[in-house]
Amino acid sequence: MVSPDTLLSASVPADLTVPVALGDRAYDILIGPGLLHRESPWQGLPRASDAVIVSNDTVAPLYADRLADRLSPHYRRVLRVVLPDGEAHKDWPALNSIFDALLGAGCDRKTVLFALGGGVIGDMTGFAAACYMRGVPFVQVPTTLLAQVDSSVGGKTAINHPLGKNMIGAFYQPVRVLCDLDTLATLPDRELSAGLAEVIKYGPIADPVFLEWLEAHMPHLRRRDMTALQQAVKRSCEIKAAVVAADEREGGLRAILNFGHTFGHAIEAGLGFGVWLHGEAVAAGMVMAAELSERLGLAATGFTARLVRLLDAAGLPVRGPASLTAQDYLRHMRVDKKAEGGDIRFVLIEGIGRAVVRPAPDGLVAECVRAHTAQG
Amino acid sequence: MVSPDTLLSASVPADLTVPVALGDRAYDILIGPGLLHRESPWQGLPRASDAVIVSNDTVAPLYADRLADRLSPHYRRVLRVVLPDGEAHKDWPALNSIFDALLGAGCDRKTVLFALGGGVIGDMTGFAAACYMRGVPFVQVPTTLLAQVDSSVGGKTAINHPLGKNMIGAFYQPVRVLCDLDTLATLPDRELSAGLAEVIKYGPIADPVFLEWLEAHMPHLRRRDMTALQQAVKRSCEIKAAVVAADEREGGLRAILNFGHTFGHAIEAGLGFGVWLHGEAVAAGMVMAAELSERLGLAATGFTARLVRLLDAAGLPVRGPASLTAQDYLRHMRVDKKAEGGDIRFVLIEGIGRAVVRPAPDGLVAECVRAHTAQG
Repeated sequence: MVSPDTLLSASVPADLTVPVALGDRAYDILIGPGLLHRESPWQGLPRASDAVIVSNDTVAPLYADRLADRLSPHYRRVLRVVLPDGEAHKDWPALNSIFDALLGAGCDRKTVLFALGGGVIGDMTGFAAACYMRGVPFVQVPTTLLAQVDSSVGGKTAINHPLGKNMIGAFYQPVRVLCDLDTLATLPDRELSAGLAEVIKYGPIADPVFLEWLEAHMPHLRRRDMTALQQAVKRSCEIKAAVVAADEREGGLRAILNFGHTFGHAIEAGLGFGVWLHGEAVAAGMVMAAELSERLGLAATGFTARLVRLLDAAGLPVRGPASLTAQDYLRHMRVDKKAEGGDIRFVLIEGIGRAVVRPAPDGLVAECVRAHTAQG
Repeated sequence: MVSPDTLLSASVPADLTVPVALGDRAYDILIGPGLLHRESPWQGLPRASDAVIVSNDTVAPLYADRLADRLSPHYRRVLRVVLPDGEAHKDWPALNSIFDALLGAGCDRKTVLFALGGGVIGDMTGFAAACYMRGVPFVQVPTTLLAQVDSSVGGKTAINHPLGKNMIGAFYQPVRVLCDLDTLATLPDRELSAGLAEVIKYGPIADPVFLEWLEAHMPHLRRRDMTALQQAVKRSCEIKAAVVAADEREGGLRAILNFGHTFGHAIEAGLGFGVWLHGEAVAAGMVMAAELSERLGLAATGFTARLVRLLDAAGLPVRGPASLTAQDYLRHMRVDKKAEGGDIRFVLIEGIGRAVVRPAPDGLVAECVRAHTAQG
C-alpha cells in the first residue's frame, strides 16, 4: 500500500500531466491547483481570432471572468455563451443557442470553444465544437470532480433527445483538458461524493493498488485535501485514458468503464433521471455488480463487503432504493439492451483490477438486486 | 484525344469501381446501370437488424420500393423516412425528424442508413448517421449527376442554419457509394446540365485529357448515353477521391475543388439561393475565374473562350446575371472570406490540369465580372 505521507508531503502540489495517446488526436490533461490564476497552462493553444467560453448560470458567475482574463492575451475577442444549468437543458435548443451566438458574432472555422463547467457543459460544448463548420477545436475546463475524472476524458459528446439520453452526439476529442483543483472547493458535498463513485470504480476494474490507496485516503479526499484530490484525479484519468486509447470508439474494452452502470442506469431510469445523482446510482450499482461477480465465482468472497465499506466512507448509497423491485431493474435493463443490439451484459470483477463483460441469468441478477436494496 | 469509339463500344457497360483511399475510412464507389435491379451490388454491407432508407417526396416514389427490395434479404426491417424535397428543408427540423423516426422505431447503434436522393438528402443523411448514437454506418445512393460526381464523394455532411449554409455538420465517410446510372434517366435536363458543370470543373483543375474527352462527348452526355455518363462519373469521382485522400479535412489542396465557386457563391447569394442552380452559378463562375487566370498570366490566351464553348455545349449559362454588379460580387465574397478567416482567395488555372489558390486585386476581379456579365 502507498503511504499517505509520501503522497501528501507538499501543501500546494505541482501540476501533473496525463497524456491521452490517440494518434493525431492526442492531447494532454493538466491537473493542478490554481490553473485559472496562472498564465502558463493557457499557452500554446490553437491560434484564432475568437475564443468562446461556454458555461452555465451556476458556474459562469464563479469562474468565467477569471478564464476570460487568461484568454484575452491570446485572442482578439473572448465571447461568452451562458446556458441554463442542468441536465434538462442538455438538448437541441441549448445547443442551437451556441450556434446562434457563434454565427451571430461571425465566428470563423478556427474559433476555439472552452467548456467551463461539469459534464453537461462538456458534452454540449464538445458536440457544438464537433459540428460548428464541421469541426472547430475545443478545450475542456471541468469544474466538477465527475467531469474531471470521467466526462472530460474520452471524447464522448452528446445531447439528449426526448426519446433517450445522449442519443445525438459524436466522438470528438478536445485539444487540451485543464483540471483546476481549486474549482472543487465550491462543489456541494453531495456532488463531491458522486464524483468519488467514478473514482472508486477505477480500482476494481483496473488497479488494486489504487483501490488500497483510496481506502487509506478517503478522509483526505472528503475534506478536499489538494494533494489527495490531485492523485485521485490523475490516476483516474490515466486509467480512463489507457482504456480509451485502446478502444476510442467503444468497440469492446471501453465497456469496462461501465462497471456498476447497468444496475445504476436502471436505478436512474426507475426513479426518474435526476432523483439520484448519476454517481449515487453507480455506487449502489457497483455493489450489485460486485455481488454478482462473487456469486458467479469470479470475485473472492468479501469483495462486495470491502467495496461497501469504501463507498460508505465516501458518503455514497450502498443499497438500491426501496421503491424499485428486481423486476423493475430487469425491465429497464432490457430497454438499454435493445439500444445496444444484443444481450444484457454486465461488467464483472474477476479478481480486483481485472474486469470482464458477460451476460448473467435473470434469477441471479434479481437475487443480487434484492440482497442490496433498502427496506421500504 | 481519346476516341469516342474505344469508350462507347458496349451499349450496356459493366460496373466500374472507384476506390477512395482514406485508411480505416476507405470505401468504394460503384458506378453502373441497373444497380437497383441487381443483387450483387448490395452484398457485403454492414450487418444490422435495421436498414433505414432516407429519401425525399420526389425520389422516394420512383426508387424507394426497388431499394427496399434489394435490402430486405439482408435486414430484418427496412424502414423509410421521407422528407420534403428541396434545399429549404436542409435544416434542423428535417434532421430531427430522422432522429425521431430512428428512436421511435427503436433502431440500435448498428442501424445502417441509406441516402436515396440528391445532394441535400446525402448531406442530411450523412450528418444524421454521424450523430445518431455517436455514429452509425451509412450508404450513399445518389440519384442526381451532381450528387454522383460531387456531394457523394468526400464525406462533407451538413445542414443549413438560418445564418448560413452548411454551417452545422461533420466530416463523415459513407461505407459505400452506389451510383445507379439509370436514375439519371428521370433527371430534368436543367439538373443534368447543372451536374455537368461540376464534371467539366475536373478537367481544368486536374486533367487536360479529360477536358478533351468532354469536348468530344458532350453530345453523348446530353442525350444520356450510359457509357459516356459512366466514364464522366468515374473520372470525376477518381479526381475528387484523389484530392480528398490527400486532404480529407480541407487543410489546403481540397480548395482546388472550388474552381468557379468563389464567383458562383456570389451569384447564388446575390440572386437569393435557389434562383440559379448551384451548377449554373458555378458555370458562370468558372468563366470569370478562367478570365482572371488569363489576365494574371497564368492560363494561356484562349482558355476562357474554350471553356465558354464547352459550358455552352453543356446547356449552361456562361455569363453572370445582369442584375448583379461587380460590387455585389465583391461584397458577397467578403462575407464568405470572413467565414474562412482570411483573404478572398481564388482557384486559378495555371495551365490546364493544374490549379493554384491565391488572392487577386479587387479591380481585376471586377473587370473579370464585367467582361462576363449579361447585358440587362
